[in-house]
Amino acid sequence: MTAVRICDVGQSEGKEVLLQGWVQQKRSSGKIKFLVVRDGSALIQGVLVAGECSEESFQLFERLGQESSIRVKGIVRKDARSALGYELTVKSIEALQIAEGYPITPKEHGVEFLMENRHLWIRSQRQWAALRVRSEIMFVIQDFFRNDGFIRFDPPILTPTSCEGTSTLFSTNYFDEKAFLTQSGQLYGETGAFAFGKVYTFGPTFRAEKSKTRKHLTEFWMVEPEVAFAELPDVMTLGDRLISAIVTHVLKNCTAELKILERDVVKLARYQGPFPKIHYDEAIKILQKRGFDVPWGEDFGAPHEQALGEEFDGPVWIHHFPAQIKAFYFKQDGKYALGADLIAPEGYGEIIGGGQREDSAEELTKRVLEHGLNVADYQWYIDLRKFGSVPHAGFGLGVERTVAWMTGVEHVRETIPFPRMLNHLRP
Amino acid sequence: MTAVRICDVGQSEGKEVLLQGWVQQKRSSGKIKFLVVRDGSALIQGVLVAGECSEESFQLFERLGQESSIRVKGIVRKDARSALGYELTVKSIEALQIAEGYPITPKEHGVEFLMENRHLWIRSQRQWAALRVRSEIMFVIQDFFRNDGFIRFDPPILTPTSCEGTSTLFSTNYFDEKAFLTQSGQLYGETGAFAFGKVYTFGPTFRAEKSKTRKHLTEFWMVEPEVAFAELPDVMTLGDRLISAIVTHVLKNCTAELKILERDVVKLARYQGPFPKIHYDEAIKILQKRGFDVPWGEDFGAPHEQALGEEFDGPVWIHHFPAQIKAFYFKQDGKYALGADLIAPEGYGEIIGGGQREDSAEELTKRVLEHGLNVADYQWYIDLRKFGSVPHAGFGLGVERTVAWMTGVEHVRETIPFPRMLNHLRP
Repeated sequence: MTAVRICDVGQSEGKEVLLQGWVQQKRSSGKIKFLVVRDGSALIQGVLVAGECSEESFQLFERLGQESSIRVKGIVRKDARSALGYELTVKSIEALQIAEGYPITPKEHGVEFLMENRHLWIRSQRQWAALRVRSEIMFVIQDFFRNDGFIRFDPPILTPTSCEGTSTLFSTNYFDEKAFLTQSGQLYGETGAFAFGKVYTFGPTFRAEKSKTRKHLTEFWMVEPEVAFAELPDVMTLGDRLISAIVTHVLKNCTAELKILERDVVKLARYQGPFPKIHYDEAIKILQKRGFDVPWGEDFGAPHEQALGEEFDGPVWIHHFPAQIKAFYFKQDGKYALGADLIAPEGYGEIIGGGQREDSAEELTKRVLEHGLNVADYQWYIDLRKFGSVPHAGFGLGVERTVAWMTGVEHVRETIPFPRMLNHLRP
Repeated sequence: MTAVRICDVGQSEGKEVLLQGWVQQKRSSGKIKFLVVRDGSALIQGVLVAGECSEESFQLFERLGQESSIRVKGIVRKDARSALGYELTVKSIEALQIAEGYPITPKEHGVEFLMENRHLWIRSQRQWAALRVRSEIMFVIQDFFRNDGFIRFDPPILTPTSCEGTSTLFSTNYFDEKAFLTQSGQLYGETGAFAFGKVYTFGPTFRAEKSKTRKHLTEFWMVEPEVAFAELPDVMTLGDRLISAIVTHVLKNCTAELKILERDVVKLARYQGPFPKIHYDEAIKILQKRGFDVPWGEDFGAPHEQALGEEFDGPVWIHHFPAQIKAFYFKQDGKYALGADLIAPEGYGEIIGGGQREDSAEELTKRVLEHGLNVADYQWYIDLRKFGSVPHAGFGLGVERTVAWMTGVEHVRETIPFPRMLNHLRP
C-alpha cells in the first residue's frame, strides 16, 4: 500500500489510506482516543474507536510519546471542524520508533532553550508555518524576475574587497590571500546588468553585526535586481511590483500558514503598490512634526522608520538621501544620493535599499578615494563606466525581513531555518 | 519613445522602435554599414543605408568602438537569415558613451587574460549563452521541487562543524568562536526532512580544494533534496526525474543558447531517465574488463567515470559503494554504504552523490567516533534518530557540473559568473 501525504487525503475520501508521520499530540475522551499526526505536509486527527481499530493499536497508543514515528492506516472522513477538512478513522498503527522525552512539549519554553533545539523547534506549528511561507516567498521572487525577463546571476560569496564598509566583514584565509564573505552581490550584479540587461542576484550575504536587534542576522539572504538603462524612479516602480507580487502570492498560497501564525490578512491585503514616494527632506519634516529631533543629514533609526510606517499606514519609499550617509557607489544629484529605501509598516523597518549607481568613471574613482578605498581593488568595477557606461540602478530586498513582515513574526530568527546571530552559531 | 528589448522586436515588425544597448561589432560593405547591437536579451543587426539613416549617424558610426553604449532608432524588418529572425533599418544612432580600447576583441585571448577580465568576458557570446542556460537551470530546479511538494529549506553557510571531512574547510572567526563555511547543507537538510517531509537546500557550498581540474571550484552551488520515509532506490528515481526535467527544460527554453554553444542537442535529448543502476561490484567488473587495474574498495577517479559513461553512453548510477570510502552518515548494509552516485556521460563525471542516511542513533554515534569526530558537536544531528527516527535519503546535485554538461562547455569556470578556484579570487 503506497503512503499518501496528509495534504492529499482529500483525494481519498471514504477510502482506506496509509499515512506516515510523527505523533504531534494525543488525548483520550472516555473510550475514544485521539491522535494528531503530522507528516510535514499537514496535520490530521486520527480517531481510535473500539470495533474499528485493532486492539494492538489501542495498546500501542498508550506508549506513543510525542514525536514517535508511526505508520497509520485508516479511513478518510470529511470533517468540517478541522483545518484540514478531514479526519481519519484509525484501523491500525505501527510504530517505527517510540520516542521518549522529546524536549519541546506543549508548555512554554524560553527562547534560548528553543534556539538550542532549533533542529527540533522547526517541527512546531508556528515555526513550520513561517518557514513554509519563506519557501513560497523564495519561489515567487524567482518567478517574478524570470517572468519579467531577468537573468539570475549568482555573485561570488568569497570576495577580495568589501561592498558596504569594512567594519562588518567576516574574513577567511583563501590559500595565500585574504578573502571576505560578501556583504552584498550588488557590485557583481552591475557587471551582469551590462552583460544581460536585467539580472538579479539571490543568495546569502554576511555582516558581522554586533547589534542584537529583532531585525539583524549575521547571515541573511538578499535578492538584488540590477537593471541597465534604468534610473531611480524605475527601481522604485520595480520594487512596488515585486512587493505586490509577494503579497498576492502569499495571500493566495499560504492561507493555512497565515492562519496558524494569526497574521492579520486584511491588513496584508492592503499592501499593494504603487506605494507613496517621499523625498528625504519631506520625511525629515514629517518626523519633526511628530516630535522627533532629527537634523537634516542624519540617517533614520528604528523609531523613525516606525513613525514613517505609521504616518502612511503602509510601505513608503524615502528617496534622495543626503550623499554623506550613503555608500560610495550612488549617483549623486548635488548634495543628495539617488538612493531609495522602502520602509515596511508595522515596525518591520527597511526591507529594500537601492538606487541609481554612479555611471561616470571619473566621479566613481574620486568617490572610491574619498571613502579611503583602494582604487586598484575596484578597477574592474570602474571598468564598467569605461566600456559603454549606461545609467543603471537596482536594489536589495532582505528576505528574512520580508518573511517576518508577511508572516507577522516578531523576530527575524524565526524566518530562516538556522539563524546566525551574535553568540548564535549552533546547532 | 519607450525602448524595446531586442528579444521582443518581433512584436514591432514594420514599425519604428528605439533600442538601447552596446556595439558588439560593425563592418562596412561599400556604402552600406552594418552594426551588431546587443542589449543582453539578444543581438540584432542594424543596417545603415544612405537616405534612410541620418548623415550624423553615418559619421558617428565611424567613431563607435566595440562596447560603445548607444540608443538606436530604426524600422524592424523580417530577416530569415539572422538568428533573431529580424534586422533593423537604422534611422538614427545616439551615443551614450563612445568606448575605446575594449580589451576583449574578436581575436583569440588566453584564458588567464579572460579570467582577469571576467567582468567583461561575460558579455561575450559563449559566456553569455552559458550563463543564460545556468539561469534557466536554477529556475527549473526550484520549479521541479516545488511542483513535487518539496519545501525550500536554506541551510546555514556558517557552521560550527564539518560535513565532508576536515581537509577542505575554509574557516572564519565568528566573534569569539571559529566557524566553517559549509561543505554541504545535507545535515541541516535532514532536520528539515523531519519537519517538512520533503525539503531541498539550494545554495553555495565551499571546499578548499587544491586540485586544479576542469571540474573543481572552491565555491559551487548545490541543490540537495532530502526526503523522510525514503530509501536508496527512491532517491535514484528522484534523481532520474530531476535530470530528465532539466534536460527537457533546457532543450525547450535555451534553443538559441545551445546553438551558440554548438551543443549536440540530439545527444542531449537522449538523456531521459530512468538511467541504468549498477552495483559497485558490477562497475568494478566492467572497469576491469575495460583494462583498468582497480581493486575492490577503491573510489573511482575521472578516468573510471569517463569509461563508465562511455560504457552506457549516457548517465549511469553506481550504488552500494564500499562503506570505507563513504562519509560517516551513510546507512550501511554489511560492508556496503547505501550510497549512489550519478555519473554523467561525455566526461562530465559525478554530478549527483547521495544515498540513504543512518537512522539508528546508536550506529550513528559509533560511526561519528570511528571517524574521529566529536560526538557533542553532532548531538543535534544524532537527536533526529532519537525523536521519531525514520528511514530517509537524499542527494546533492552540483549545479556547475550540470550546467557544464548541459551546455557542453569544457571547464566549470564558464558555468558561474565569477568562478573561485585555487589562485582565482579576483575580480
